[in-house]
Amino acid sequence: MENKVLIFGHKNPDTDSICSSIVHEILDKKNGWNNTKAVRIGNVNKETQYVLKYLQMEIPELIEEVEEGQEVILVDHCNFDQSVDGIENAKIISVTDHHNIGNFRTSEPLYYNAKPYGCTSTILYEDFKKFNHKIDKKEAILMLSAIISDTLLLKSPTTTQYDKKALEELAKIAEIDVNEYGMEMLKAGTDVKEYSEEQLINLDAKDFNKGDVKYRVAQINIISIDDVLKREEEIKTVINKTIEENGLDLFVFAITDILNSNSEIIALGKMVDIIKPAFGKDLVNDRVFLPGVVSRKKQLVPDIDKNI
Amino acid sequence: MENKVLIFGHKNPDTDSICSSIVHEILDKKNGWNNTKAVRIGNVNKETQYVLKYLQMEIPELIEEVEEGQEVILVDHCNFDQSVDGIENAKIISVTDHHNIGNFRTSEPLYYNAKPYGCTSTILYEDFKKFNHKIDKKEAILMLSAIISDTLLLKSPTTTQYDKKALEELAKIAEIDVNEYGMEMLKAGTDVKEYSEEQLINLDAKDFNKGDVKYRVAQINIISIDDVLKREEEIKTVINKTIEENGLDLFVFAITDILNSNSEIIALGKMVDIIKPAFGKDLVNDRVFLPGVVSRKKQLVPDIDKNI
Repeated sequence: MENKVLIFGHKNPDTDSICSSIVHEILDKKNGWNNTKAVRIGNVNKETQYVLKYLQMEIPELIEEVEEGQEVILVDHCNFDQSVDGIENAKIISVTDHHNIGNFRTSEPLYYNAKPYGCTSTILYEDFKKFNHKIDKKEAILMLSAIISDTLLLKSPTTTQYDKKALEELAKIAEIDVNEYGMEMLKAGTDVKEYSEEQLINLDAKDFNKGDVKYRVAQINIISIDDVLKREEEIKTVINKTIEENGLDLFVFAITDILNSNSEIIALGKMVDIIKPAFGKDLVNDRVFLPGVVSRKKQLVPDIDKNI
Repeated sequence: MENKVLIFGHKNPDTDSICSSIVHEILDKKNGWNNTKAVRIGNVNKETQYVLKYLQMEIPELIEEVEEGQEVILVDHCNFDQSVDGIENAKIISVTDHHNIGNFRTSEPLYYNAKPYGCTSTILYEDFKKFNHKIDKKEAILMLSAIISDTLLLKSPTTTQYDKKALEELAKIAEIDVNEYGMEMLKAGTDVKEYSEEQLINLDAKDFNKGDVKYRVAQINIISIDDVLKREEEIKTVINKTIEENGLDLFVFAITDILNSNSEIIALGKMVDIIKPAFGKDLVNDRVFLPGVVSRKKQLVPDIDKNI
């Protein structure tokens, strides 16, 4: 078993999951706790690669599963379906998160610090303030990259005043033009040409359970929705294969236009009938266009969840 | 629907549940949030009555259930099995708690502030500090009463350094002899002569679920275990009736000697066989003596939970 307390975000990690893990470890050390270590439980996407390359930082070590009793710290998720293999038997010391609480349970009390903000790094930014720790340039860029990623440059409806304030102050410390840096970073993540259809639907996929219903909501950020829709038939084929292999009742794939803040969704599976009550629009050829929808957490999952 | 955001602790509220609800409302007002209201979801026990009488305070209003969409704040619990009727369809704004997370889920992000301390009021005490609010005598007595109750005057293994520190500082503000006040308060709660057997097993009862297994762990604090065991047969009869009426797989009734820090437990139900692996001792006539065991949360429930 790993001696250190492992810190990690969700499967198919996004920039918040990776950056917040790293920042959590830094914060622990500032608080005199030297026994924690940021790791990741999945591949680093191109957007996050851009950030780490910009900072000339190493990609955290990959952990595939944890042994029974392994001490862990979760950031940017709590849902066991989205966590590391073996999480049910790990010892969860603490959680720092900004999601709803779904499939999560512990047998003992723990530290749980959740706020309904746009980004986990905004919570960590407030922790820096709470403990009166100075934030250096590198730390500021890690946190502001996570905020830009999760809020799509403050345009997502998940954005709160706290994210805005944090981004503003972090940008000052980083001495960076947030819009310029942010667009470059986001665009790096939308370069999906060389991905296979299988990779496309797994880049940022999250599983959810409600009662006996299992569903997955995958999302990609993109500059042109049409570029992805050119590959629609191949994408549907791999989605149907995934549904079968994983016993899913529903697979929702959101293709999100980050410039215009809209999403086209492809929905497949035996529970597709809930798309109509959830979003008020009929699926046509398994697809529906959702204007203004960019957030899985705030716009897609709650409406799906309520209709199950 | 109640316009205010309702703050409440668990069913069969203890002193922490009641006092932390009241203190949470006070803290909200100090933070400029005037729209919250402390209520209770069950009868106030004699220990808590002692505290409120000492402070010449009114007992909070009783709420039996909440309507769909009612905004609520949970303190001292999160488990839906221990919460108000209708909680599944309420809008949970925040939780301040010191328990494990079991049967709890929300469809949207929320504030969640949990720490593995001995008492919810210790977390609220730290919140007073965080926001630089002054604590007055009444507030100090509310919080220290909760800490004394939950930690049995710092003797329970759930006690942390944070509870000790909080109790020490609150006692100074309250200008109170903690041991003298605390023993009077605890003793007021152990006066169970006039309770029926049915009332005895419901004074402080909590329900738990794991998979398909439903179990209840009830506890009473007492000066003399023998005084309660005189009524053993009648108690077993009402426990068996409760098991049948509620479809429970296990009922554990802990009679806790607060002076000597031991418990005698009575266990009934079709899953009593897990008592042996959980506590390493055989039941004799449905009973077993557990030296040093005083905490449901830290000593009883984790060991039961692990063996289900």
